[in-house]
Amino acid sequence: MPQFRKDPIVNRWVIISAERAMRPSDFTEVVGEESEEVEEAKANCPFDEGNEGATPPEVMAYRPKGSKPDTPGWTIRVVPNKFPAVSREGQPTRTSHGMYDQIDGVGAHEVIIETPDHDLKFTDFPSEQLQSVLHAYGERMSQLKKDARLDYILIVRNHRKQGGASLKHPHSQLIALPFVPHSVMEELEGSKQYFDNKKRCIFCDIAQQEIEERVRLVDENEDFLAICPYAPRFPFEVWILPKKHRTQFEETTRQGTKTISEILQRTLKRLDVALNNPPYNLWIHTSPISLTNPPYYHWHIEITPQIALVAGFERGSDCYINSVPPEDAAQTLRGVKLAF
Amino acid sequence: MPQFRKDPIVNRWVIISAERAMRPSDFTEVVGEESEEVEEAKANCPFDEGNEGATPPEVMAYRPKGSKPDTPGWTIRVVPNKFPAVSREGQPTRTSHGMYDQIDGVGAHEVIIETPDHDLKFTDFPSEQLQSVLHAYGERMSQLKKDARLDYILIVRNHRKQGGASLKHPHSQLIALPFVPHSVMEELEGSKQYFDNKKRCIFCDIAQQEIEERVRLVDENEDFLAICPYAPRFPFEVWILPKKHRTQFEETTRQGTKTISEILQRTLKRLDVALNNPPYNLWIHTSPISLTNPPYYHWHIEITPQIALVAGFERGSDCYINSVPPEDAAQTLRGVKLAF
Repeated sequence: MPQFRKDPIVNRWVIISAERAMRPSDFTEVVGEESEEVEEAKANCPFDEGNEGATPPEVMAYRPKGSKPDTPGWTIRVVPNKFPAVSREGQPTRTSHGMYDQIDGVGAHEVIIETPDHDLKFTDFPSEQLQSVLHAYGERMSQLKKDARLDYILIVRNHRKQGGASLKHPHSQLIALPFVPHSVMEELEGSKQYFDNKKRCIFCDIAQQEIEERVRLVDENEDFLAICPYAPRFPFEVWILPKKHRTQFEETTRQGTKTISEILQRTLKRLDVALNNPPYNLWIHTSPISLTNPPYYHWHIEITPQIALVAGFERGSDCYINSVPPEDAAQTLRGVKLAF
Repeated sequence: MPQFRKDPIVNRWVIISAERAMRPSDFTEVVGEESEEVEEAKANCPFDEGNEGATPPEVMAYRPKGSKPDTPGWTIRVVPNKFPAVSREGQPTRTSHGMYDQIDGVGAHEVIIETPDHDLKFTDFPSEQLQSVLHAYGERMSQLKKDARLDYILIVRNHRKQGGASLKHPHSQLIALPFVPHSVMEELEGSKQYFDNKKRCIFCDIAQQEIEERVRLVDENEDFLAICPYAPRFPFEVWILPKKHRTQFEETTRQGTKTISEILQRTLKRLDVALNNPPYNLWIHTSPISLTNPPYYHWHIEITPQIALVAGFERGSDCYINSVPPEDAAQTLRGVKLAF
């Protein structure tokens, strides 16, 4: 059973998951050259149509009415991660260990297989397919929210091997935890403090200033804004946020799913062209399960290309050196000519 | 002029340093294979003896009495970083930009060239040389503390290219800032809260529990303890901390320098053997300049091998998945037979 353990100084939880060490690509090669870009023969890809038996049984799928689970014909499949960082069974029992705190490693770790098409680039998804992916995120979140053991659900998408994708077939991950992870907790605390002081949502204020200034604006549509944030940790970091105060991603309407998919695809396409298909990480920050409609918090997507070194200074200080001012990055991204 | 900018939500400063983009190895190769391990012809290494002109003029050196600055004969040289992330000149003026905060990017960014010997491994340094390196850290810190513009001094050591070392010649870096960086601020806040509650230093309590439990102990001597912390973010992460309450690294005595160098070298040697010369990052966390002898904070060294993937989940949650329990890592490291 994995364990959550809390750093007693900074109150940051980590997941100690020895089982996870079994995963083939968990450690980077230390010596010699990087191995080739991840690439599997179609026959071996566990996410391909026809290979449904290579994954744990699906927990949800979009498939024709009447077709059986774990058979071909689906457009999206959600399955438990074969190498989960957390355990689906058991209770998140809290215990002490001398001065330290731990929780039994209970949660959920799922894979959203975004298309049966092994080679389809995420940026080339038909709009309806991307909308379905976003809808699937929301559906899984709504389902898992009913599990009283959980308090946070994070959606993550890694692109390319350097970005942490262990398989090339388009997929994203969902990780559900019995606590709110450190970076979200920091956002909640910071935005609550701002709200207590000003009685305004800081995300709404950011959206307003960015719309007025326009220098860090990457794209926008009727519902959403894509910006390079004012103090980005990483070069070409982009955030996508709702223009109106929206606290829960999973409450996105059909119309919302359409406009998110539109701005998300345009933004990723801009990054793809400007940086030549960079590795990236994408995640959704939304409100914790136990917090309904906070007036101070606003769900959003963060996208960070993995193109800059993260070395001792960054690790040791959490103060990132970013050599690309967000105004320059936004200008470059705005300048990309989109074919659609 | 670089700029410090504050993320308004989580109050984390970043350094926006467009000048830094000029540095040859700042971006990782995005496409294709990793280039070879960093390796320069001796004639081209700016840190080699005889190439003193290739660096900015030295700010300090250990060299024979009477020998001229920036000439051969030194054992340790400290020079300004040729590609500094911050500017040595000017004032750290604070300004607002709408709802955002910025500070002019004033600070210091220095390189400690640890030996004239290009090929000497840090783990093979004669003990006196390593003591001199630690002494040089302290001397530079004491000197820079007098600069009223500064509030924090961080020492960082990156090993191997994957660890962020842009040159192979043994060296470390010093970065001085007009504010306390995020991760140190978190430690200060967390340890102060613990102290307010218990009237004890949390680092002293950790040292005591680890000495009693011994399962996460890597090494110890009369003054210091090397442990795998209870909730490590990274596999084989090691902390070295004074057994007694010590708040300022730069106040280390000669005897202290000797026993740090001893446990540091033994610890790095253990990592070197156990993980086959892994890339790593090492840093020293000490008290801010403006905080003298806090009863709640304890200086320490953190060492994190760069052998595990940091992907979207970690970036998006700051909740690290660590597949090596610290008890297992400590056992492996304790088991390494040391020749000295």
